[in-house]
Amino acid sequence: MTPAYDDTLRDAPTETFQFHLKKTDGKARLGTITMPRGTIRTPAFMPVGTVGTVKAMYLDQVRDLGADIILGNTYHLMLRPGPERVARLGGLHELIRWPHPILTDSGGFQVMSLSSLRKLDERGVTFKSHIDGREHHMSPERSIEIQGLLDSDIQMQLDECVALPAEPREIQRAMEMSLRWAERCKVAFGDQPGKAMFGIVQGGDIEALRVKSAEGLKALDLKGYAVGGLAVGEPQEVMLRMLDATLPVLPTEKPRYLMGVGTPDDILKSVACGIDMFDCVMPTRSGRHGLAFTRRGKVNIRNARHAEDKRPLDEESSCPASRDYSRAYLHHLVRANEALGGMLLSWHNLAYYQELMQGIRKAIAEGRFADFMAETQEMWAKGDIDPV
Amino acid sequence: MTPAYDDTLRDAPTETFQFHLKKTDGKARLGTITMPRGTIRTPAFMPVGTVGTVKAMYLDQVRDLGADIILGNTYHLMLRPGPERVARLGGLHELIRWPHPILTDSGGFQVMSLSSLRKLDERGVTFKSHIDGREHHMSPERSIEIQGLLDSDIQMQLDECVALPAEPREIQRAMEMSLRWAERCKVAFGDQPGKAMFGIVQGGDIEALRVKSAEGLKALDLKGYAVGGLAVGEPQEVMLRMLDATLPVLPTEKPRYLMGVGTPDDILKSVACGIDMFDCVMPTRSGRHGLAFTRRGKVNIRNARHAEDKRPLDEESSCPASRDYSRAYLHHLVRANEALGGMLLSWHNLAYYQELMQGIRKAIAEGRFADFMAETQEMWAKGDIDPV
Ligand SMILES: [Zn+2]
Ligand SMILES: [Zn+2]
Repeated sequence: MTPAYDDTLRDAPTETFQFHLKKTDGKARLGTITMPRGTIRTPAFMPVGTVGTVKAMYLDQVRDLGADIILGNTYHLMLRPGPERVARLGGLHELIRWPHPILTDSGGFQVMSLSSLRKLDERGVTFKSHIDGREHHMSPERSIEIQGLLDSDIQMQLDECVALPAEPREIQRAMEMSLRWAERCKVAFGDQPGKAMFGIVQGGDIEALRVKSAEGLKALDLKGYAVGGLAVGEPQEVMLRMLDATLPVLPTEKPRYLMGVGTPDDILKSVACGIDMFDCVMPTRSGRHGLAFTRRGKVNIRNARHAEDKRPLDEESSCPASRDYSRAYLHHLVRANEALGGMLLSWHNLAYYQELMQGIRKAIAEGRFADFMAETQEMWAKGDIDPV
Repeated sequence: MTPAYDDTLRDAPTETFQFHLKKTDGKARLGTITMPRGTIRTPAFMPVGTVGTVKAMYLDQVRDLGADIILGNTYHLMLRPGPERVARLGGLHELIRWPHPILTDSGGFQVMSLSSLRKLDERGVTFKSHIDGREHHMSPERSIEIQGLLDSDIQMQLDECVALPAEPREIQRAMEMSLRWAERCKVAFGDQPGKAMFGIVQGGDIEALRVKSAEGLKALDLKGYAVGGLAVGEPQEVMLRMLDATLPVLPTEKPRYLMGVGTPDDILKSVACGIDMFDCVMPTRSGRHGLAFTRRGKVNIRNARHAEDKRPLDEESSCPASRDYSRAYLHHLVRANEALGGMLLSWHNLAYYQELMQGIRKAIAEGRFADFMAETQEMWAKGDIDPV
């Protein structure tokens, strides 16, 4: 008799980077990524550890919630503390005390959104730091070099992500250059069996360009593929349409990562399209602003209705932040702008996201993902418990 | 054979508020305060939970460090969430999830230092909130009423604390009014066997006025006595001289609390004068600004010498924040203004303060407080470990 699926068990790490597709349920996929530093159960949500810290969290807490991997932002880390310094300190894992896998983005997206005075051409991008105005240059090769200095387990190619809406010609130009950069990144990354470098599908909101991008990347035979340039303001329907156009082109035996996504509903629907990995600042950023994600939808804890509510955010949760602290206290802490408010709500939100991923994985394992999705959405639609 | 003194053991709580003076060593005193919500080992340091949270700390961590009692600020709590609301929510202990003793100040000190448009006379003080400008009135009776609504275990009389330097006549006027207010607070507090209301010795930097204040309070037969209006900018030598003038007047069988003090050195020297209780924002506030208190003196973690130092703040500490995180990481977090920096350094500093208090209590128990004080000061003078 096969033992029942236990989502808390992680496969043993492996010497080489491997993706194991264990089960599909419709287009939803259950799998694991195994590598020397550990195993990632997919579909996976990666908490964002921007500058070497998942904001207002101890990494022990992040791990205890079930996170198998966190994300680091190359742009932030290259400015501070700097990749060479991180390398001298033994790499990012040792510096921040997270011995498990880390994925780093290429830095490109934040160069575009945060820095000033950018000059972008085929060679790469020149920009000024948003912290001290110092000029930096980033090429595809330098991005991979930096991610190597950080000792990142999953590295991302440098790409150009155009803001939508944009002219088709502009979208195409950026997509084609990103493809050429993917090839340069592959060469720069070289042969590192325990690690992976992922390509990034671009092409804006134009299905034909998305397909062309995916085909080009597939031909490069990379270890994994990301979908980039989505969840940047376009309607959710457009994002899902792009996934439906893109994912069938990508090889089934490689992991697929939807970058910077998203809300719990985005995640559920993207899993239904066949996405394996997600990252987003939403749980931590929203938490710091008093917004809680719960089984019964979004709760704005600043709202006056919580001021004298002794009930917790979710009495059925196993997370102390969700279960043990009253809404009244959370309301007070957020209103008074106290650090503990952001600490507790970030904790709660990350717990909810990991709980959602666990539910998703269990449902796929049991062949009932569609039901799980409908039930989950139904609970969200019910809304919060009635006021006291 | 008497078992060796074990500072980790707390006496059983008692139905009534009691102070037990267990041993003296020179003028230093070892004791316990027992009351229904728990036992306070003295000399005690009370972390400051300003507005219902010890900033950037989980209260479980504060407890685990050895804190027997925390302090709440009546001024902050009366403005937000408001005493009547706290009472409806079951009192401060339940709201913030700290079932152990809480001491509240009277609010007077912060009315003077934080609010605007104050009008002070014999009846009390009228002031405008620093948050929303709303006008509030606080009399001695209202201060005790508020502290009762918070369900505070040790309440403080309302007093007037004059800023030094000040005219002797002004110091005397405020001291005499504070004495009359102490009497009104005693009446307002009434008969609450499980709790205590402390009087506050005033008199600025004038020994004769301090003595008069202490005598007046002693005649009121209160359950404990605080020394107020010190550590407000005067030299440490003046503070210690005032303690030497005041403490012999106070009854030995009552606890003595030096308000708002102070640095580790202030604490050591005040214990030597016979003080039993302390509170100060210094460990948490300094922590948020990158300043660490250690066995080897103060360490400014922002300093460039720590940028590539893989050693922890104190490898011999039992606190994870002190022992497990590199100076390089702390330096990075503080420089990047990340929440985790303040979280870790507040944790470290509170650990150091509690460790100091444990050392003090053990030394008094063993009759070697003078040696302990000399050794501790010698270690501080040695300064930090050499740079890498
Ligand atoms: Zn996002
Ligand atoms: Zn202080």
